[in-house]
Amino acid sequence: MTIETRLESLRTYMKDEGLDAYIVTGSDPHGSEIPPARWRTREWISGFTGSSGTVVVTSNDAGLWTDFRYWLQAAEELDGSGIRLFKEGIMEVPSPEEWLAGTLGSGAVAAVDGQTMPAGRAGDIQRRLAGAGIGFAADRAPWDRLWPDRPPLPGKPAVGLTLDETGESRAERLARLRSALAEAGADTWLGTALDSAAWLLNVRGADVPYVPVIAGFLIVGSGFVRWYTDRSKIPADLQDELVADGVEFHPYDGFLEGLASLEESAGVLVDKHLLSRGVLDVLPESVGRIEANDPVFHMKAVKNRVEVSNIARAMEKDGAAMVRYFRELGERLEQGDILTEIEAAALLLEKRRDIPGFLDQSFSPIPGVDAHGAIVHYEAREEGVGTLKKGSGLFLIDSGGQWTDGTTDITRTLSLGNPTDEQIRDYTLVLKGHIALSTIRFPRGTRGYQLDTLARMYLWRDGLDYGHGTGHGVGYRLNVHEGPHVFNTRPIDVPFAPGMVASNEPGLYREGRHGIRIENLIICREDEKNEFGEFLAFDTLTLAPYDPRLIDRDLLDESEISWVDAYHRHVFERLAPMLEEADRSWLREQTAPL
Amino acid sequence: MTIETRLESLRTYMKDEGLDAYIVTGSDPHGSEIPPARWRTREWISGFTGSSGTVVVTSNDAGLWTDFRYWLQAAEELDGSGIRLFKEGIMEVPSPEEWLAGTLGSGAVAAVDGQTMPAGRAGDIQRRLAGAGIGFAADRAPWDRLWPDRPPLPGKPAVGLTLDETGESRAERLARLRSALAEAGADTWLGTALDSAAWLLNVRGADVPYVPVIAGFLIVGSGFVRWYTDRSKIPADLQDELVADGVEFHPYDGFLEGLASLEESAGVLVDKHLLSRGVLDVLPESVGRIEANDPVFHMKAVKNRVEVSNIARAMEKDGAAMVRYFRELGERLEQGDILTEIEAAALLLEKRRDIPGFLDQSFSPIPGVDAHGAIVHYEAREEGVGTLKKGSGLFLIDSGGQWTDGTTDITRTLSLGNPTDEQIRDYTLVLKGHIALSTIRFPRGTRGYQLDTLARMYLWRDGLDYGHGTGHGVGYRLNVHEGPHVFNTRPIDVPFAPGMVASNEPGLYREGRHGIRIENLIICREDEKNEFGEFLAFDTLTLAPYDPRLIDRDLLDESEISWVDAYHRHVFERLAPMLEEADRSWLREQTAPL
Repeated sequence: MTIETRLESLRTYMKDEGLDAYIVTGSDPHGSEIPPARWRTREWISGFTGSSGTVVVTSNDAGLWTDFRYWLQAAEELDGSGIRLFKEGIMEVPSPEEWLAGTLGSGAVAAVDGQTMPAGRAGDIQRRLAGAGIGFAADRAPWDRLWPDRPPLPGKPAVGLTLDETGESRAERLARLRSALAEAGADTWLGTALDSAAWLLNVRGADVPYVPVIAGFLIVGSGFVRWYTDRSKIPADLQDELVADGVEFHPYDGFLEGLASLEESAGVLVDKHLLSRGVLDVLPESVGRIEANDPVFHMKAVKNRVEVSNIARAMEKDGAAMVRYFRELGERLEQGDILTEIEAAALLLEKRRDIPGFLDQSFSPIPGVDAHGAIVHYEAREEGVGTLKKGSGLFLIDSGGQWTDGTTDITRTLSLGNPTDEQIRDYTLVLKGHIALSTIRFPRGTRGYQLDTLARMYLWRDGLDYGHGTGHGVGYRLNVHEGPHVFNTRPIDVPFAPGMVASNEPGLYREGRHGIRIENLIICREDEKNEFGEFLAFDTLTLAPYDPRLIDRDLLDESEISWVDAYHRHVFERLAPMLEEADRSWLREQTAPL
Repeated sequence: MTIETRLESLRTYMKDEGLDAYIVTGSDPHGSEIPPARWRTREWISGFTGSSGTVVVTSNDAGLWTDFRYWLQAAEELDGSGIRLFKEGIMEVPSPEEWLAGTLGSGAVAAVDGQTMPAGRAGDIQRRLAGAGIGFAADRAPWDRLWPDRPPLPGKPAVGLTLDETGESRAERLARLRSALAEAGADTWLGTALDSAAWLLNVRGADVPYVPVIAGFLIVGSGFVRWYTDRSKIPADLQDELVADGVEFHPYDGFLEGLASLEESAGVLVDKHLLSRGVLDVLPESVGRIEANDPVFHMKAVKNRVEVSNIARAMEKDGAAMVRYFRELGERLEQGDILTEIEAAALLLEKRRDIPGFLDQSFSPIPGVDAHGAIVHYEAREEGVGTLKKGSGLFLIDSGGQWTDGTTDITRTLSLGNPTDEQIRDYTLVLKGHIALSTIRFPRGTRGYQLDTLARMYLWRDGLDYGHGTGHGVGYRLNVHEGPHVFNTRPIDVPFAPGMVASNEPGLYREGRHGIRIENLIICREDEKNEFGEFLAFDTLTLAPYDPRLIDRDLLDESEISWVDAYHRHVFERLAPMLEEADRSWLREQTAPL
């Protein structure tokens, strides 16, 4: 089927149903960042393969909304489809709902599959459309009918995690959840997010690209745990364990029915950013809805001692892979080899795979040479791929692993030879911000939006900036992007707490020239307590050297130089025992005092 | 009347009206920070004289909620009244509505004078109480009945400002407001805030302590401007001018009636943070309510060229007064004089009064010696007053003036002799933050919560902090605290824009020892524009030296030293021509390069 015939079939459906517009979110009923193939409806209808966007189709028009990361790619992929590109983030560009309000007449109806849209967002759209006299139907899911070879849900086997891996039993986690529910005045929790269910039940799977989770829905009440999932994925002994902890199994497709018959629930806790509109619409009217932050979303963000000590091991493995990778890459370039960005990324995957405990990459790596490094979410493809060769240029590689011990995310930028003054100055300014965030001490209660500035201030003083957040939370053998905490310019009101893991990844991107990003994972911990308050600080988790050729010592102050030297010493001490002599001596050189 | 008999009379009223609780906000129908005497209901009912707090009275209990600034004072003032102190800001202390929800039974009714509470806050309380089955009546104003000698509204004469003073005519301001209304889809604006009305009509008065405004209410529609005020305060020629610009005069007391008959309005713009619940309850049902940020609140924050150049003159006058003050204060202490904090504040007022164009202080000055300096909103009273004498100690004085050319707000901390290492280190760390905020460059769109960190980071690194915001907006011959922009840790989502004036006032308070605060006013301006965005920066407006005896040069880096030297040179150049030789030579010494 071509995009034209797909659009045609959706329009026929719309006509049959009396709909004037259909909104395709491209998300799944779990709010997954990268949904399984079955749920890539945005890609199916439009041909656009980016990870973020919204398609809106009317009887005679269609548009894709996506942010600056994907403008170029979207323009190419939409070419000839008849779908227009709306560049999200430009002031004059209307949002999908504003566009619909201006395009459809009063009395028209727009629809969406409410299961693929958070309730909060759906409410915003509905209110905006209502202001223009346009109706909103959130219960239309045409895909089974329109999509002939729609892929089934994946069927990968699940594994249970031991107490050595989680530090907290399933029963303890359920008890903590139930007490959080009681505190909020609720007795029922709906677990539609796959990482929340995996965390709560201490299970992992492989149903979503890059994320070791199992497709399913959870309902936790005061006296029951109902898991709507494909039981055949769960090994028999794990089933027994789960049943012993009170878990009842139900078919994946039975979730909405299960919700509809939840009459025994006194009150469901509703986080409108996480629960879908479709879920809320199916809940019986008689059941109370208590709006609050999802407790699991917040509990899971705070890593316990066992998790933290496992993550430290994952960092050693990941760091050893990085060192072997950079050493071999440098050697091959030195020998005159030319590698494409795809080959360079593949080599890193190979190095990670060589180490026991590696499960998968934690996301699709971003390997950008020179101008490609300036494309923040660059994806290397055969067509127009960049090449690494000795002599000049910068190579930025952002990658991560899913290890049995935890999830990693690291970016390093390296010189391919003869770094220019501009490259060195840019790298050093980014590094100064990265260090400022790594070393800050701050009072308990401080939010990520307050700390984000530390990573930007040296760039700002030079009239420079980067167009992304400074960091995101990271899961434990779960999503590489995990809420609720972030380092971001937006006013996201979540204080940092001891045990939270986040990335620290300032950057600088000169369009057409080069991109620089330096990323470590850091973990929040307790620090001094005194009459001025309880102070927190960060420890750096990631173990890999910076590129000393790109550091201008004169732009660093004494404390910054000491910090880099101490970090490098620490990296060497932790990784050296895992390395063979060639790699160790390479690392010794990279981590020599500045 | 004693507090007991006042409480008794309120309880009798409550009983008559079938009310189980009454909430006293202590605010006026204009949301004034310091209301005129007529509206000091919180003080009348409780005896508490602080500027912030809420009193709640039930049939057999009563409480005052106030923040940490007033805990000590409130405890003293409430002693023996039977009113309990609830310390706002402590985690375990319930909010007034939480306390009521836990105290009153289902079916009870709590009341407030809705005109003295913003609609947003009233809605929050009402929802919380409704959750406990408690009713909320926002239309009970018992004060005329209970308060025998309730003071009348002040009757000070108004003045009109010229175009040289405002840079924008009344007609232009009204036209800008109307176009902002149209953009929001509204046609009517309610001006209950006195500074908004004064700004829009280019008039000033003297009806509120420290703020040159006129008590009144404005209704601006597409074809009319109705001003509910005491016309006898307005000189005849100003009345003519106003009438020529379309202003109709109505009695102050006619406002609610005027609102109730607003049927011709198509839509009223409603900012729930500014408009009171009482106002919204009186609006006819038929009139649309368009929720949006108040346009005048935002327009007034951005100063135009004429205002900015006048403010520069006000800064010179204020700076000259500060220099004469510090010179004379130092000389008198040197001669062995001992001054109380009250005398020291009076001397500064005298110096300001000596300069033409001085109207009033912009707030009650805060003159704290040693331990008193650590009380952030310290008010010097005869009982327990501190004294300044030569030899040792720190003196913090926070003060400001209402000048015909604008409003000032300045804090300086000075050594009274032999500064300790701790005092010098503390002062220098505060100064470093103050400089970091003064000198930052940042992309357009940056919010105050992002910049606040710059002023704190050096303190944080030492395990220090201060418990107030870093700065607030400042009006033009209006409120010394003016929204919407702030430097604060809270996520207040207002980007800084060129023309916004704000204070830059980090501090450090060692309980029982000393307080340090350094405050200048700064103004946002355009800076570099390049491929990374449009950058903004600040210029410092305040003209007064820091105390060089408290600066540790070794804690400053080169750029900080240059900045202090350049600022001091600038202060000298601007003020020297206004000073007599003795003051000039004192200033020359104070502003010598570090």
